Amino acid sequence: MSDGQSAETDGSGVEPAPERTVVQNAQLALLLEVTGTPKPGNVDRAHDYDDLRFEHFMAGAVGAQRGLEMAADGERLGRAFERAVAGMSRQRAGNTQFGALLLLTPLVRAAADGDLSGTRAGELAAETTVADAADFYRAFEHVDVAVDDPPEGMDALDVRRGAAAVPTLEERGLTLYDVMDRSTEVDGIAREWTGEFERTVDAAERLLELDGPVPNRAATVFLELLAEEPDTFVATQHDADVAAEATRRAAAALEDGDPWALANEFVAEEINPGTTADLTAGALFVALERGLDV
Amino acid sequence: MSDGQSAETDGSGVEPAPERTVVQNAQLALLLEVTGTPKPGNVDRAHDYDDLRFEHFMAGAVGAQRGLEMAADGERLGRAFERAVAGMSRQRAGNTQFGALLLLTPLVRAAADGDLSGTRAGELAAETTVADAADFYRAFEHVDVAVDDPPEGMDALDVRRGAAAVPTLEERGLTLYDVMDRSTEVDGIAREWTGEFERTVDAAERLLELDGPVPNRAATVFLELLAEEPDTFVATQHDADVAAEATRRAAAALEDGDPWALANEFVAEEINPGTTADLTAGALFVALERGLDV
Repeated sequence: MSDGQSAETDGSGVEPAPERTVVQNAQLALLLEVTGTPKPGNVDRAHDYDDLRFEHFMAGAVGAQRGLEMAADGERLGRAFERAVAGMSRQRAGNTQFGALLLLTPLVRAAADGDLSGTRAGELAAETTVADAADFYRAFEHVDVAVDDPPEGMDALDVRRGAAAVPTLEERGLTLYDVMDRSTEVDGIAREWTGEFERTVDAAERLLELDGPVPNRAATVFLELLAEEPDTFVATQHDADVAAEATRRAAAALEDGDPWALANEFVAEEINPGTTADLTAGALFVALERGLDV
Repeated sequence: MSDGQSAETDGSGVEPAPERTVVQNAQLALLLEVTGTPKPGNVDRAHDYDDLRFEHFMAGAVGAQRGLEMAADGERLGRAFERAVAGMSRQRAGNTQFGALLLLTPLVRAAADGDLSGTRAGELAAETTVADAADFYRAFEHVDVAVDDPPEGMDALDVRRGAAAVPTLEERGLTLYDVMDRSTEVDGIAREWTGEFERTVDAAERLLELDGPVPNRAATVFLELLAEEPDTFVATQHDADVAAEATRRAAAALEDGDPWALANEFVAEEINPGTTADLTAGALFVALERGLDV
């Protein structure tokens, strides 16, 4: 952590401004994600849901700090994630950035280790243990996360069971990577974990390549990601058809260049592409670490 | 700092969510201030200036962390403030929260010491030294802050001279409190430093007493503060008449209950009551420390 105290001072006795730390970039990424406007169906500067509002994302980003620090400091990824979620949950809306933190945890560790690449983050994901999986299940004790019924034979591992599922995890010797690997069908974040964070890293490069204020770039990248692939959170909240249709509508909005109308429609229809917003947060973090200037 | 590691766990092995730390509440206060909308003449969820936008306040709040931690950890207040400003300045707009950080620094120390009262914060302000004053001047090396010409005989202590003014400070033996005491005419934050933070603490109580989402309360308190007293930053940017007129217009908007029109007018006229926004940030911090629930 750059505390400026060891920094060189010039003749005036004024030390240079400290660079943002890895953890500070992760927090800023969470803040810039919700600042990106319009992000159809998600909370942004212009849209709230009655029980999920902009200020809850501010408090969630601040509260996640300690867990993100644990990830940067080498704590077990599952444990760092569980603490980040616990801190995030300290606001009235409950779940604001669960998926974003799941995505950020290995990326923060990779950046703190000095190699923020999808390959390295993928290796860290693959190295997770049964203890990390247990931490992941414990994280569900802090917030209500919308999930579907588990697949055949996975009832004992329904994440809604939270810590109660831990003995089964241990019995079956499932690591956090194994749990993610079993969720790729229904969770876009799990696909990143098992796919070397490909969409996240590509979206980061896109953020760096676009022009204009960072929140505008984030809104564009959000829409491009949604137009490219159905959002798994929408599929969970509604169904696969609604998710596919939402992606078609995003592609159309991207074409006609007016996402504002779609933003109002999605909020009214409670179509909330939260996983795509989580990917945008992860991409913002990678881009900030690679020099994105705010 | 609550890291949850020492917390009791229940049968499930799940530790409780950590409380926000004093520094986290200070950062959240900065974020909630800019989230409060509408705040006539200031950046909020609905308003930006071309060169001073919402995302700059996000980055400023994140960047100030280390300096705020130094204030909480007992570092000299001037030094903690200078580091907070240095970190805040790490975004393209330059000065976003200079006054808010000047207000927060003694309040954060008071809270970290376990006695967040105006009296205690006032004592801490009174205990500042010449070294703190030197740090305060160094802080101006990091950002351009709009200030008027110094009063008669104070040219050598023009804050725009930054670190170059330090020898004169030392010669005259002026503490940071002395510098604030000489600025009360032109700076509402200096008045808080020398007046036991009275308006800040009163506004915090008002935030706790109002109903509804915290950003709405912040917007109301901002308008009440502006309607009550001319903003010294507006007086500096324009003149005393414009500042007095802005306060009259705020009182009228408060009465007719439609601050949105005024918000658009003030931005168009570049009337930016930044000191009143700083007071709102300080009040949000005190209110969060006193249990304001987000």
